[in-house]
Amino acid sequence: MKIKGKSYRSIWLDESDREVVKIIDQDKLPFSLEIKELRSVDDIYNSIRDMNVRGAPVIGAAGAFGMYLSTLEISEYSNTIDHLNNAARYLISSRPTAVNLSWAVNKVLHSVTGLSLHEDLTKKAYSAAMEIYDAELKNCMEIGKHGLKIIEEISKNKNGNPVNILTHCNAGWLACIDYGTATSPIYMANEKGIPVHVWVDETRPRNQGARLTTYELENESVPCTLITDNTGGHLMQNGMVDIVITGSDRTTSTGDVANKIGTYLKALAAKDNGIPFYVALPSSSIDFETGSGKSEIVIEERDPSEITDVTGFAGGKIMSVRICPDDTKAVNFGFDITPSRLITGLITEKGICGANQEEIRKMFSEKITR
Amino acid sequence: MKIKGKSYRSIWLDESDREVVKIIDQDKLPFSLEIKELRSVDDIYNSIRDMNVRGAPVIGAAGAFGMYLSTLEISEYSNTIDHLNNAARYLISSRPTAVNLSWAVNKVLHSVTGLSLHEDLTKKAYSAAMEIYDAELKNCMEIGKHGLKIIEEISKNKNGNPVNILTHCNAGWLACIDYGTATSPIYMANEKGIPVHVWVDETRPRNQGARLTTYELENESVPCTLITDNTGGHLMQNGMVDIVITGSDRTTSTGDVANKIGTYLKALAAKDNGIPFYVALPSSSIDFETGSGKSEIVIEERDPSEITDVTGFAGGKIMSVRICPDDTKAVNFGFDITPSRLITGLITEKGICGANQEEIRKMFSEKITR
Repeated sequence: MKIKGKSYRSIWLDESDREVVKIIDQDKLPFSLEIKELRSVDDIYNSIRDMNVRGAPVIGAAGAFGMYLSTLEISEYSNTIDHLNNAARYLISSRPTAVNLSWAVNKVLHSVTGLSLHEDLTKKAYSAAMEIYDAELKNCMEIGKHGLKIIEEISKNKNGNPVNILTHCNAGWLACIDYGTATSPIYMANEKGIPVHVWVDETRPRNQGARLTTYELENESVPCTLITDNTGGHLMQNGMVDIVITGSDRTTSTGDVANKIGTYLKALAAKDNGIPFYVALPSSSIDFETGSGKSEIVIEERDPSEITDVTGFAGGKIMSVRICPDDTKAVNFGFDITPSRLITGLITEKGICGANQEEIRKMFSEKITR
Repeated sequence: MKIKGKSYRSIWLDESDREVVKIIDQDKLPFSLEIKELRSVDDIYNSIRDMNVRGAPVIGAAGAFGMYLSTLEISEYSNTIDHLNNAARYLISSRPTAVNLSWAVNKVLHSVTGLSLHEDLTKKAYSAAMEIYDAELKNCMEIGKHGLKIIEEISKNKNGNPVNILTHCNAGWLACIDYGTATSPIYMANEKGIPVHVWVDETRPRNQGARLTTYELENESVPCTLITDNTGGHLMQNGMVDIVITGSDRTTSTGDVANKIGTYLKALAAKDNGIPFYVALPSSSIDFETGSGKSEIVIEERDPSEITDVTGFAGGKIMSVRICPDDTKAVNFGFDITPSRLITGLITEKGICGANQEEIRKMFSEKITR
């Protein structure tokens, strides 16, 4: 998608030097557009952990590229299998909740299993990583096409007024190489001339909504309004939201969704007000091995300083201010689980299905391993 | 209550110079403890509007003192009745949602109706304002005593572990002269040696939870943990919250509660997880004239800059950082309505009653005017 009229992706492999992965540094947006070069497994690990690169599909792609870079780091003294297994474990440990990361890393790892020549390994890892990259890109476009139908349908009853869409966090193109998951139907509706307006939850503590979703939407000329995370319920009570669309960091085989903390509260409000609540996701974020979200998914706990200190822009530079007393304790859970009963449907690359085991199994029968 | 071991109230009339109202400037806390002197109706109006003084009971008291100060401003050329009516209208317009303000202002106004001698007017306004002040103070203590019983009851099943209480915004002593409404039962439980722990919603956009509630609780040695407004649902899903207690800016005759934006979302999560949700309030915040909260209460819309810019402390001074792109639009609703069906009970100075017309009428039969 575009930034100031120029097309970007959120992550890509440098065409002239294939040993360099480039990312838009999401930790600097919207204050400064900086492209960061990642040249090692360590670089990839640090960028995922520090959220210079973030969003389930993108960290999947980053992990896949990381495995490719790891094949370049095999020395003549290392045991190839150990080296690759260690790299995989290390990369997966950078963030625990999103399943795309382990899925992508393991996919590249398995693709090179049995190969011994370094050159073969590297070639194979490259093509496996690129396959994931291209597939995720295509998935986002397919999600957009399926989701677009829902927005078109709602639009029919709006008499030309914009369809009001509420979203939480950033499940936009920055999180997903291009197009996004939750935003993909929105971009397609906008391109097609269907009037839309997006309520953007700021999404504390890291404010990905305030920093990234607004930035994306504005650069694509999609009308949007920033709100606090507290506001969605009030808007829904007052007929100001037609549909909620969020992304997902991990979806269980039964349709529970682990997504950015606070998603559950919006799902409750949507249910209470009879507003459709959709989750847009590529099947790479479905964890077919996990049953109940509440009991089986590890919820990442991040540094309390993300809560006690808020980062923003002042006097021409990026800086943080402390918003509470010096000695205040805080806890920082990154995600929550939205139970399937609150979800109207899952918008996937293969179509829209109910958030339940039966419909998920039917749509992705080829992926079911148990 | 105490700040660094010294007792304070959040607002008081100077004993040596009764023409000066003093407040703790809540806009500076917790970064700096500053006492502000208010000497005119204008000072009172500005302090309420700019939230140097905030919280339903305190702005009621401030409004009452404002009417008293207005009697000191009557000149020999002014029409007394017009002067006082104008002062009342002006003061009430400083913030629209809390009902205590208009209630207190009108109470002082009516107390002086018919008087013509300036000296009589001033004396009468003084005593009417002090009556409101003392009554609100006493109400908070009574609310504490009634609410304490609920916490004691929950504590019985906790095997000595702390009762986990979640609260939103600041309905503490800073908002209420002393003790607070939502916090009053907590302070009393803590004084009595009942183990309690408070989850403090930071309460965007103005972060009254992060800035004020943590500050209050820490100064009274009540264990507490700061969380984002997104977090409460996750905690409730995981058995980490035993009870929710919030304050109220306006409660309708049918038990709907207008309180800080985001309260409704927490009430939904409490309901979904079978957790008791109580609202603590003095009867001065019940609007016996209002039926349905959703249709009749004016929801204050505040400056969008409270959302786009976050105020905190950095490099030894209070400053703001912008958290979104320069041209991002935002809307800032101050309150939402929690429907009575989500409320377990109202903790009032007269006892605990259900959030419904019948029980409210029964408990406050002497106040019903229609």
